[in-house]
Amino acid sequence: MKTIGEIGEFGLIDRIARFGAPSADVLTGIGDDCAVLRLGDRKLLVTTDMAVEGVHFRRDLATPYDIGYKSAAGALSDIAAMGGTPLFFLVSLSCPVDTEIAYIEAMYQGITNLTSAYGVSLVGGDTTRAHDRITLDVQMIGEAKGLHVLRRKGAQAGDLLAITNTVGQSAAGLKASMEGHEVPELLTAHYRPIPRITEGQWLAAHDAVHAMIDISDGLIQDSGHLARINQIGINIETDKLNPSPALSKYCWENNLNPIELMLSGGEDFELAFAVDAQECQSLFSLFKQEIRTPLRVIGRFTHEWTGVRVDGQPTNLHGFDHFSV
Amino acid sequence: MKTIGEIGEFGLIDRIARFGAPSADVLTGIGDDCAVLRLGDRKLLVTTDMAVEGVHFRRDLATPYDIGYKSAAGALSDIAAMGGTPLFFLVSLSCPVDTEIAYIEAMYQGITNLTSAYGVSLVGGDTTRAHDRITLDVQMIGEAKGLHVLRRKGAQAGDLLAITNTVGQSAAGLKASMEGHEVPELLTAHYRPIPRITEGQWLAAHDAVHAMIDISDGLIQDSGHLARINQIGINIETDKLNPSPALSKYCWENNLNPIELMLSGGEDFELAFAVDAQECQSLFSLFKQEIRTPLRVIGRFTHEWTGVRVDGQPTNLHGFDHFSV
Repeated sequence: MKTIGEIGEFGLIDRIARFGAPSADVLTGIGDDCAVLRLGDRKLLVTTDMAVEGVHFRRDLATPYDIGYKSAAGALSDIAAMGGTPLFFLVSLSCPVDTEIAYIEAMYQGITNLTSAYGVSLVGGDTTRAHDRITLDVQMIGEAKGLHVLRRKGAQAGDLLAITNTVGQSAAGLKASMEGHEVPELLTAHYRPIPRITEGQWLAAHDAVHAMIDISDGLIQDSGHLARINQIGINIETDKLNPSPALSKYCWENNLNPIELMLSGGEDFELAFAVDAQECQSLFSLFKQEIRTPLRVIGRFTHEWTGVRVDGQPTNLHGFDHFSV
Repeated sequence: MKTIGEIGEFGLIDRIARFGAPSADVLTGIGDDCAVLRLGDRKLLVTTDMAVEGVHFRRDLATPYDIGYKSAAGALSDIAAMGGTPLFFLVSLSCPVDTEIAYIEAMYQGITNLTSAYGVSLVGGDTTRAHDRITLDVQMIGEAKGLHVLRRKGAQAGDLLAITNTVGQSAAGLKASMEGHEVPELLTAHYRPIPRITEGQWLAAHDAVHAMIDISDGLIQDSGHLARINQIGINIETDKLNPSPALSKYCWENNLNPIELMLSGGEDFELAFAVDAQECQSLFSLFKQEIRTPLRVIGRFTHEWTGVRVDGQPTNLHGFDHFSV
């Protein structure tokens, strides 16, 4: 009898996906950042993001405000990844009975300070006892604007792979946090990631963008999802990755490889997308006129192989599997 | 510093409710069975139901199919309690890495066998590792039919309190399960509760029904929510409770008090509702012509006190608080 540890998170999701019965109103089901649901003439986006103490966060490192903020950021980022507008959310919480009320209130403060910045309302949830660890599950409900939903599916050979801003800072921030290093930029990247809602909406409204995902489990892994679902290859070019100054400095001082952190570190919540190679330059110029977040091409889609290679070579770097130990 | 154990589940919910910012599109927020959300000309119902191993279920007593079935039943019952139509759902799962895949698949089979009976589709979710216990969180999305949403609020002094079918069987079924007693009716009531979707829709479509809730935490406690939110009293008359034959027999044989189980036992997932006293009889006759589920008046709303009394007397029986230990 095989265990979940043996088949891993994505093996498990494949098994679970078999239970998703097809329906005319389910425009996108299991296997994307959000489900896309038809409701009359509207398109609903729904997603859920579960955070478990000791797996996703440590109470000795993160404040309750951090934990709440980040759970909300993860769910908002899933809406961003499809170009949607978040509207409402629910929170399920299980925690030990001896948890202080002030601690829980700080978590909800972290959640709602972020969501209220996007005009998103807490509308419900569930609360229950747990034996010894906190679990927080945030369910976000959003809406697609008009016809514009960007899925993981749609990338074509020849497309460029681009990302918003930069990656690797969150993973470095976690290391800094664990080592007690005071590196504000990296700690902020880890504990206060910015869901790319505006960027996602803008990109989804432009036909030159063919597919999108958010980088929650690392660049290699999440671009791997783009590759797999489109049955296509991706080549990531490390000379284009261009680590942030803060990441470069921290890695230099601590004898770390910034490229490795950029490829496999998770939770940056930046967007990765496939963009038409011919139209990329003009699209980026247009984007720059309206939005300050930098965009950067870091690779290319190809029909020469399937899966992700780095500088043309297979890699054994990987991202975050929630069932690897 | 106070803990959650000290203020209890409903004290905690009151604190959390403060984080729910008002919005014109949130027709009903925290504090009912579902949130009611305006989306264009539609009314969305959303709810979430979290089940934690060792709190809501025991793996040595329940099969994985049972656990899945019941989690889905709880979420469907919340939709039923407002008279809605369930449409889609998501499932968040955290479990230890050594959990067998077959075990998880049986859980999803239990979930989807129930949901597919109502034409409801699994559309997404999240999966993650947990240290030692399974947590299952089911998020149900439904829709109100037309203008018909029944809330907890709306009961008036003079209204009758009625329930669908009967209560207490689930609590007796749990006892039977723990004692290893083979009592099929009671075990079925506990492990295969029926969400009252059709009944809820019918009741919500009739103006004589003023308020509704599902009985998930026990009759005393859930009717207490109706009393509290309407700032009103309820008198439950024990001679009208009329235990089912299976419950009577089991209680007789095991020296249990059936009335106590009916008042404080949870998870029957029947509906409790306030109905206009003048129109009750004709409403029940109409209902009977279309739906086979029995309805029963078990008490009356009154302005003479606030809260729930039993046969006119205050009671120290209570239901299930997820943070009491």
